[in-house]
Amino acid sequence: MGTDQLSGPARVAGPGEAISFEELALAARNHALPLEALRYDVTPVGLHYLLIHYDIPELDPDSFRLVIGGRVRQPVRLDLAGLRARPRVTHRVTLECAGNGRALLEPRPVSQPWLTEAVGTAEWTGTPLAPLLREAGIVDGAVEVVFTGADHGIERGAEQDYQRSLPLADALAEAVLLAYEMNGAPLPPQHGAPLRLVVPGWYGMAQVKWLRAIEVVDAPFQGFQNAVAYRFRERPEEPGEPVTRMAPRALVRPPGFPDFMSRVRSMTAGACRLDGRAWSGYGPVTRVEVTTDGGASWAPARLDPADGRPWAWRRWWYDWDAAPGRHTLSARATDATGRTQPLTPPWNRGGFANNLVQRVDVIVTGPAGR
Amino acid sequence: MGTDQLSGPARVAGPGEAISFEELALAARNHALPLEALRYDVTPVGLHYLLIHYDIPELDPDSFRLVIGGRVRQPVRLDLAGLRARPRVTHRVTLECAGNGRALLEPRPVSQPWLTEAVGTAEWTGTPLAPLLREAGIVDGAVEVVFTGADHGIERGAEQDYQRSLPLADALAEAVLLAYEMNGAPLPPQHGAPLRLVVPGWYGMAQVKWLRAIEVVDAPFQGFQNAVAYRFRERPEEPGEPVTRMAPRALVRPPGFPDFMSRVRSMTAGACRLDGRAWSGYGPVTRVEVTTDGGASWAPARLDPADGRPWAWRRWWYDWDAAPGRHTLSARATDATGRTQPLTPPWNRGGFANNLVQRVDVIVTGPAGR
Repeated sequence: MGTDQLSGPARVAGPGEAISFEELALAARNHALPLEALRYDVTPVGLHYLLIHYDIPELDPDSFRLVIGGRVRQPVRLDLAGLRARPRVTHRVTLECAGNGRALLEPRPVSQPWLTEAVGTAEWTGTPLAPLLREAGIVDGAVEVVFTGADHGIERGAEQDYQRSLPLADALAEAVLLAYEMNGAPLPPQHGAPLRLVVPGWYGMAQVKWLRAIEVVDAPFQGFQNAVAYRFRERPEEPGEPVTRMAPRALVRPPGFPDFMSRVRSMTAGACRLDGRAWSGYGPVTRVEVTTDGGASWAPARLDPADGRPWAWRRWWYDWDAAPGRHTLSARATDATGRTQPLTPPWNRGGFANNLVQRVDVIVTGPAGR
Repeated sequence: MGTDQLSGPARVAGPGEAISFEELALAARNHALPLEALRYDVTPVGLHYLLIHYDIPELDPDSFRLVIGGRVRQPVRLDLAGLRARPRVTHRVTLECAGNGRALLEPRPVSQPWLTEAVGTAEWTGTPLAPLLREAGIVDGAVEVVFTGADHGIERGAEQDYQRSLPLADALAEAVLLAYEMNGAPLPPQHGAPLRLVVPGWYGMAQVKWLRAIEVVDAPFQGFQNAVAYRFRERPEEPGEPVTRMAPRALVRPPGFPDFMSRVRSMTAGACRLDGRAWSGYGPVTRVEVTTDGGASWAPARLDPADGRPWAWRRWWYDWDAAPGRHTLSARATDATGRTQPLTPPWNRGGFANNLVQRVDVIVTGPAGR
């Protein structure tokens, strides 16, 4: 008996290969943001996207201990009261799955079959990581910090606790939090209770949930999630570059009302203020463009003023005079570093960071004679 | 322009027809209970199953009013403070989608593609409906009560607010609640904020969310969700019987740990206490049987003592001596009325109330030489 019976290598769907029951089972567990929830600045619990590789573990908050060790002078062991007694900060942070959009790629990488909605924004409260690491005393030669969650499973044949490393400089960034609250309440089980890592700007794979151990290391971490899973590859044998920060992306909040099955929208002709959200992990979003004709023409959207929350999505809006007929709406984002959403999504075997442009189909019904 | 462009009739998948992107889009919105969450007596918000036909509407709790009218002597108009000032009760209630299990049927009805996990249990707090109806004064000849939600959309060509009726006797049942809290906190948006109906024992389609109007009527309601959608039919032209209460069902909490992609479980050989939950909308669950050999043999499970919560699922457990090899685990429930889970699921075109038996695949690894 071995894991070869239950865990195959990563693969790409063949031409015309349909969504499998394995992919459907992942979609039933790991839900996206319902697009109408783009109306909320802060996503309510239960609407924020979720990706859980294995099972949600059950941890007793009373016996919980976080250990910080490895290449430090003074290993640290902290319970929740100890973490809560440290400086407390709240950051509003947009998180997105690195595989968002994957199921729409051609060919389709076979994994969690996200459409374009694997995103959410929450208020994460906790204590900054950097002072804790500095107090522990980082030893010369340290290069990365490894974060270990309590979730355990098998992935592509490798049994593991979920683990991810960050380069030391990224782990020491001021905004990185050990978070014990989400939206003003203790973390819910599915978001990492009692403690998780929050690394603003990075894709979800870096945001280790059910965090139980932090280890400073003096060589690049070779764990599965860093060395095998989250890498940009065109061919399986390439080492690939690591997946890190969120590429810019904009989403349209669908106007009108939906058809149950097709999700196509219906609305009446006339003035309509379209809106949505845009974000990037590299810098503030500085431009959003909107098309209402399936990409034939693009017009600039207006952006909400900067609000001093650099890690949260930014609201945009666009006044549309909707004429009767069928329309396809999209938006695309550009950030302060000049990164933008390409019209042809970049493809890689993992379907990572593809930031393809969302399409919202709308049927506009007009007054008679219009 | 018409809804014929965006909304087709209900249909059944052809032989070998794969899961479509429309079905996948529904699965990304409407999530199931992650099976490990069967550990909780009360399902945390965000893990409870969700089925939202259209969009989550945005309602202002301050301007919210519930209207009760139709065949009553004194129509009633209540704000949230008025509802909260009335007698307050909390019921622990298991809710399940009427289409739970649909995607596993052969042939597959094309709709929300549930596997077996569209269930959850919450503590619903609100005020009983029956005294409110009695105070309004039900007029002779009334036969049903129609509940209207604020969610609006198109379904199979019919534009509608979500509406469902209950027979008058069912609407007057003591346990029926107008609920404004879930698990001790105000209803979250996705569960019907600020007010919803809770009808213990009935499938989810009766539990009208975003409830804004109640109308007593003197003829059977012919709205879409009662007369067209939720009916048992073998052929499309049949009128069909209405879908009402939850058929008995048991679920196994998967032991061991999962493979990411296949969700097949891995565990070590030896003594293992299996457990799970079972429920029925017709009466208390009185028997749960377990198989560890894919249905070749069944053995009785133990049930937790009755706890005076007749509308909530019941925990069961079974001590299994797991031998190395591959096993398929299932459980089946029987209730006090004698209803049981059939080994061959009943089929209908909507995939309703099919209560097919869940299958959990486990690979048990043994010590060398065992």
